Amino acid sequence: MMPSTVQAVASATNRGDLHDGVAPLPVTKTLAEFAANFDAEKLPPQVRHQVARCLVNWAGCAIGGAGHLSVSTVLATLGPFLGPAQASVLGRRERTDILHAALLNGISSHVLDFDDTHHATLVHPSGPVLAALLALAEYKSIRGRDFVAAVAIGIEVECRVALGICPAHYDIGWHVTSTAGVFGAAAAVGRALGLSTHQMQWAFGIAATQASGLREMFGTMCKGFHPGRAAQAGLTAALLAQGGFTSSERAIEAPRGFAHVTSTDVHLGDSVKDLGLQWVIMDNAFKPYACGLVVHPVIDGCIALHHASQLQPDNIVSVSLRVNPLVQELTGKSSPQTGLEGKFSVYHCAAVALIEGVGSSKQYTDASVQNPVTASLRKRVSINVDQKIRVDEAVIEISMVDGSVVTHHVEHALGSLEKPMSDDDLERKFVNLVSDTLPEAQWREALDQCWKVEQLSSFTKLASNLSLQ
Amino acid sequence: MMPSTVQAVASATNRGDLHDGVAPLPVTKTLAEFAANFDAEKLPPQVRHQVARCLVNWAGCAIGGAGHLSVSTVLATLGPFLGPAQASVLGRRERTDILHAALLNGISSHVLDFDDTHHATLVHPSGPVLAALLALAEYKSIRGRDFVAAVAIGIEVECRVALGICPAHYDIGWHVTSTAGVFGAAAAVGRALGLSTHQMQWAFGIAATQASGLREMFGTMCKGFHPGRAAQAGLTAALLAQGGFTSSERAIEAPRGFAHVTSTDVHLGDSVKDLGLQWVIMDNAFKPYACGLVVHPVIDGCIALHHASQLQPDNIVSVSLRVNPLVQELTGKSSPQTGLEGKFSVYHCAAVALIEGVGSSKQYTDASVQNPVTASLRKRVSINVDQKIRVDEAVIEISMVDGSVVTHHVEHALGSLEKPMSDDDLERKFVNLVSDTLPEAQWREALDQCWKVEQLSSFTKLASNLSLQ
Repeated sequence: MMPSTVQAVASATNRGDLHDGVAPLPVTKTLAEFAANFDAEKLPPQVRHQVARCLVNWAGCAIGGAGHLSVSTVLATLGPFLGPAQASVLGRRERTDILHAALLNGISSHVLDFDDTHHATLVHPSGPVLAALLALAEYKSIRGRDFVAAVAIGIEVECRVALGICPAHYDIGWHVTSTAGVFGAAAAVGRALGLSTHQMQWAFGIAATQASGLREMFGTMCKGFHPGRAAQAGLTAALLAQGGFTSSERAIEAPRGFAHVTSTDVHLGDSVKDLGLQWVIMDNAFKPYACGLVVHPVIDGCIALHHASQLQPDNIVSVSLRVNPLVQELTGKSSPQTGLEGKFSVYHCAAVALIEGVGSSKQYTDASVQNPVTASLRKRVSINVDQKIRVDEAVIEISMVDGSVVTHHVEHALGSLEKPMSDDDLERKFVNLVSDTLPEAQWREALDQCWKVEQLSSFTKLASNLSLQ
Repeated sequence: MMPSTVQAVASATNRGDLHDGVAPLPVTKTLAEFAANFDAEKLPPQVRHQVARCLVNWAGCAIGGAGHLSVSTVLATLGPFLGPAQASVLGRRERTDILHAALLNGISSHVLDFDDTHHATLVHPSGPVLAALLALAEYKSIRGRDFVAAVAIGIEVECRVALGICPAHYDIGWHVTSTAGVFGAAAAVGRALGLSTHQMQWAFGIAATQASGLREMFGTMCKGFHPGRAAQAGLTAALLAQGGFTSSERAIEAPRGFAHVTSTDVHLGDSVKDLGLQWVIMDNAFKPYACGLVVHPVIDGCIALHHASQLQPDNIVSVSLRVNPLVQELTGKSSPQTGLEGKFSVYHCAAVALIEGVGSSKQYTDASVQNPVTASLRKRVSINVDQKIRVDEAVIEISMVDGSVVTHHVEHALGSLEKPMSDDDLERKFVNLVSDTLPEAQWREALDQCWKVEQLSSFTKLASNLSLQ
């Protein structure tokens, strides 16, 4: 007796027609047509510039994270199995085959939790797309203008796949940066390889059937692994599709396709609305501070006060923060002991920002959290929660030894869509992240190349500038 | 305003404690302890022999499928990115790094749909486990008895993970051979590497967060890709865990872990019940015929009639089949044109079995389906559905030109749990699958080594015997 097998075969045979009251939107084909055929001449200038901003931010994060234990563990562990030295591992000396370069650069760019965010879906868009595409671009001859179009299209497909399934998809427990990221990587690489629409549909199918990544992994090395694996899997998908490896041609919308299997609230109309007219990449935001977004308004205000008031820690009697209730809920750790705990302590975040005027990755190391001056000031920080304060807002009030009081009101934190980081802000962030790792002449040239990415005739020199020689 | 981000951070911070009315069973740790520490001396003899049967069957399928276009497409496409020649690609000349050997051998062993089946879950257990473990065993020094224990433990973990989430998991659209297979591969490789319980928990976590594979892909090359990717990902998981790559330690049962994210009916008690006492591998079944299980009783009976009655096709007036209704529903194609369509045509299945007395992969090629003698006989085949006939049962009645009638009643098809394939049956299947590819002296020695796998001191010679030199 084989009842369950037989039922399964029955379902498989009828696949695609079981739940079809009306035929679903052909989202896979629509996105594939867009990815394969969108006229790059029609890319708006602001989209092309936003691609350069993504590249500056992503490369800085990857180089800043390149020394992380999770990156060196992957290199040490998988080292014996790597292919030829075809592509650079950013911020490091090693070179690997492009599949593993995509994996490694995807990991390093996310380990600091400092990469970009598409707020509507919580996708961190650049990791999967740029890690896959830069590895390919170093290996194959790709022009800067084609690279830019591929990034814009990859991020568009990635975020639009996510828009059709979120927030339910994320709420269920999927790390959408990984699950949607694999589509973005496939789209970007597929575009750069010149796939036909039909091949692109296969690439999306091969991507869909590799989509994985659980939020349960947050707090472990697997979180950073996710965008890396998505980059590697998406790159693989596009290469296999080009080679003729077949897949479902409606992997996203089919009744047993990616969307319905991984989300309980599918609204794929959102995935194709105004495609090629409205660009999701323009809603991509960059983080000025290397910690959770909820504490950014406090850091923002403390940095402003640092610069405005020349505060001496010894002269501060107390620091009072009026904040949204979520600040206490998420970052209420009053006695952090490690750098990671410091990210979840609004007390540390405020103290270190007031003292140092910066909120980059160095402000969230064990040493920074254990610094006695910072530790002393954070004991004088208190918070008052206020339902009326928005999550990107904060009011800071500092009482000084001389009896004076200084206050600062942050209406919208830097890095929010209302107050995006400027190009100069992104440059400062990049420099903060890379200057301990790369020689100055090298990172200066790399930064220049990133801003002018569209004019590059090859990616060999940029990749070499972003890594150690 | 960043409300959804903030909600997400809140959820992530509270992860694991959100839905916990009662603490879930520590399934990940229990399975990890079992995989790491089960005393191999206590493996029952029938389990050890069943491992050898799995190996014979799996190796035959992999060699039989090694020439499939999906295997050569992966090799051609990913060829430039492969690592050192560390492990064999079964049935072929190429050698690759172990990660890609696992991928390729996992694919080839499933492309013919001829591998083993754990009926209760629909997992095809050997593909992910053996593809990963044999690649490792060829590369590292592993003894036969440790290999056997690792296979038994890998298949046990794989099927038990599936038992706790199926059938809902499969019904939702997950290809459970892939999603549970990655745990099996991680367990087998982790065991062979000597991981501690704690490392094994990480290996299961790294496996869980790579689990993927959609049933939507059935009918495309991606179906065979699934066990290959599961083997590669599970092997990667165990290697990374050994290297210190951290992960969730309760990846299976956590509220946002693998089970709850991918199934709507989780019953993890079934995953650990009688662990180490009852062995799921004993419920693993082998297919005698290279097509869907539902048509096996008909083939079984037609082969018996072929051998018993020396039938000449020209002397047959009509063939009447009394079968379960699912036979018509699933294999009712009356005029198949291709080998694949032939698998879904009970008419072809019956005709070719009556004429040739075999139901191996050669009976389901385009040439076989288009053979005029077979095509002529299949037009004389008719079916009568009967609710009272079980799915592993069939009654065949043949009317001859001379007016005589021969009948045959198949109570339980060969390959069902009630009538498993014998060791001799498995040998015949192996020979059918490999004899066109490998020299006879080589496959004879390989077959002998598979049966005596427990006595092997190294896997170098076996792997070389199973591939082309």
